[in-house]
Amino acid sequence: MSLHIEKIATSKINDVDFSKLSFGQIFTDHMFECDFENGAWQTPKIRPYQPIAFDPSAKVFHYGQAVFEGMKAYKDKNDDIWLFRPDQNQERINKSAERLDMPAFPKELFFEGLNELLKIDSQWVQKGEGDALYIRPFVIATENCVSASSSKNYKFMIICAPVQAYYAGEVRVTFADKYSRSANGGVGFAKAAGNYAASFYPARLAEEQGYQQIVWTDASTHEYLEEAGTMNVFFRVNDTLITAPTSDRILDGITRKSLIELAKDEGINVEVRPVTRKEIVEAARKGELKEMFGAGTAAVISVIKGFADQDEKFELPVIENSYATLLKTRLTGIQQNKLEDKFGWRYKVQ
Amino acid sequence: MSLHIEKIATSKINDVDFSKLSFGQIFTDHMFECDFENGAWQTPKIRPYQPIAFDPSAKVFHYGQAVFEGMKAYKDKNDDIWLFRPDQNQERINKSAERLDMPAFPKELFFEGLNELLKIDSQWVQKGEGDALYIRPFVIATENCVSASSSKNYKFMIICAPVQAYYAGEVRVTFADKYSRSANGGVGFAKAAGNYAASFYPARLAEEQGYQQIVWTDASTHEYLEEAGTMNVFFRVNDTLITAPTSDRILDGITRKSLIELAKDEGINVEVRPVTRKEIVEAARKGELKEMFGAGTAAVISVIKGFADQDEKFELPVIENSYATLLKTRLTGIQQNKLEDKFGWRYKVQ
Ligand SMILES: Cc1ncc(COP(=O)(O)O)c(C=O)c1O
Ligand SMILES: Cc1ncc(COP(=O)(O)O)c(C=O)c1O
Repeated sequence: MSLHIEKIATSKINDVDFSKLSFGQIFTDHMFECDFENGAWQTPKIRPYQPIAFDPSAKVFHYGQAVFEGMKAYKDKNDDIWLFRPDQNQERINKSAERLDMPAFPKELFFEGLNELLKIDSQWVQKGEGDALYIRPFVIATENCVSASSSKNYKFMIICAPVQAYYAGEVRVTFADKYSRSANGGVGFAKAAGNYAASFYPARLAEEQGYQQIVWTDASTHEYLEEAGTMNVFFRVNDTLITAPTSDRILDGITRKSLIELAKDEGINVEVRPVTRKEIVEAARKGELKEMFGAGTAAVISVIKGFADQDEKFELPVIENSYATLLKTRLTGIQQNKLEDKFGWRYKVQ
Repeated sequence: MSLHIEKIATSKINDVDFSKLSFGQIFTDHMFECDFENGAWQTPKIRPYQPIAFDPSAKVFHYGQAVFEGMKAYKDKNDDIWLFRPDQNQERINKSAERLDMPAFPKELFFEGLNELLKIDSQWVQKGEGDALYIRPFVIATENCVSASSSKNYKFMIICAPVQAYYAGEVRVTFADKYSRSANGGVGFAKAAGNYAASFYPARLAEEQGYQQIVWTDASTHEYLEEAGTMNVFFRVNDTLITAPTSDRILDGITRKSLIELAKDEGINVEVRPVTRKEIVEAARKGELKEMFGAGTAAVISVIKGFADQDEKFELPVIENSYATLLKTRLTGIQQNKLEDKFGWRYKVQ
């Protein structure tokens, strides 16, 4: 089953102003595509990026079987292109797919498609400060049938969008106490499309109150702080870095797990355990809450300046020797092939 | 903003064998479509049913903003076409949309599109015993952008599929004790696409154990029986009919609320209150659990023959004077314009 490649006649890259990119709106010249039909993945293709015809009854529109991944490629000064722990994304998309009763996409095909696509569109990976290529693998249900059961057919795709350093402005968060993102025994740990749709309305209400993100809590008691919209969350109390353990409600973030390792490597005391809103509020009151930040592929680390717990508002101090800065420098240094990669996380596109 | 209509040249109806329909696979000649762009619903259209081109970055594929409805049209002996409480579907799709941060679709447009479409495709509503036209309104996010936030653009559609009486064979169910369908503060009450995707994998595991449906329980304790895959659930203990109250976890089913009214009208004692698995198991042990059935648009009433609570299995008795039979006869009689409609539920297409 060899990869079928059809290239564009003329690249559209010259039409793109790489200094003025909105996140995820401009796509590269090509896309990778592979259909699951008759119980098997068919011949994979790379072809010019373009719209695709779907029947209005395609199951993805009705029953939400859709999972995705997000990764970034960086180009170094020698024009080599690097990915960060792509094996983790490859495994996670299949874990997400399994929970949504969708077929696994073979590892070899994933890497063959990814490498070829990045080589063909390599000029789209810019090498200015903060430049990257955002990579979006995803799988959607394509059977044409409006009865509520698993699709027989699927489409796996990879599309890519050039992006600049992600900066969302100053971030303040609010702790969820009414809405929730996921249930015990639900699909919160999966990168399932429906999880995001469920979060937009509460996020908008929070935004109207002046908070750019919600820190989700467990749906049963709203006592435990879990994760943010598209980020896991870390708290620094005195000199200890704390983050919630993963569970069936929380996405097992690759940035999160890498930061935990890097922090330990830096000699920072790390605790992976349930975190209560109560302890964080108390730490904030006592001046012991030094830092709070989100961790995810898009922003790498996003510093949180303040938070609200119900009606009470807290601002975090500006501190020297911040863990966020230390860890972000180290992680992006590894990602961009500027620092030693002692954990073997970098992956060279070839 | 008048409705734009483009009709097919030749109907494909003669290619259809109406005696051999699989649910939701064959669609009528036309579809209704209306796009939300620049903050407003644009000119609605009826045009030949056909595939539509979507950019691979369309938000529905990534973030799951998608809601739907399901309704049925029946043709009576005078060739009049009837809907059942369509105002309820119209209100519910907007409630679902609101929770997913999607714009409401105007009531007038909903009814104009629905009526016109059913008149143009009226020959697709067959009038044999059990024949109906299944109607699927839905809304999907169409902005082309892979950043995790609400879409700016949407598409509202109505597509229709001729169906025969829905019979799923003998139905046995299992009570959920690990997986769950929705959380407090989540989107379970909405007809959101992602809810269904989340249920397929547990449903398949149940099916492998011999159960055609799962009765979902609350995610916090798994003590309360809530609803089934696409049906609300009723229990008859002695001569009392019991069903769970709606909440933010449970779909406010139109069949359910209509059956509650009909049962009361028949003088049946109805209790709408939390139902524990424990009381149902005890009633079954004592021989007091007389009936159990699902209620939803597709099957109207689906009799449940037996259930499993963890490893314990129960079979229900075959009884005379079943509430299920009584209520189904009355409800379908009203829907098909064969019985008096004292509640004013029928709606004539014109
Ligand atoms: C819900 C959620 N949590 C956390 C993350 C962070 O995961 P990662 O570090 O693998 O990007 C993401 C994805 O970016 C996410 O969507
Ligand atoms: C989850 C769920 N519960 C219950 C129902 C029953 O609702 P209705 O009677 O309005 O069809 C449906 C839809 O059919 C459903 O999808």
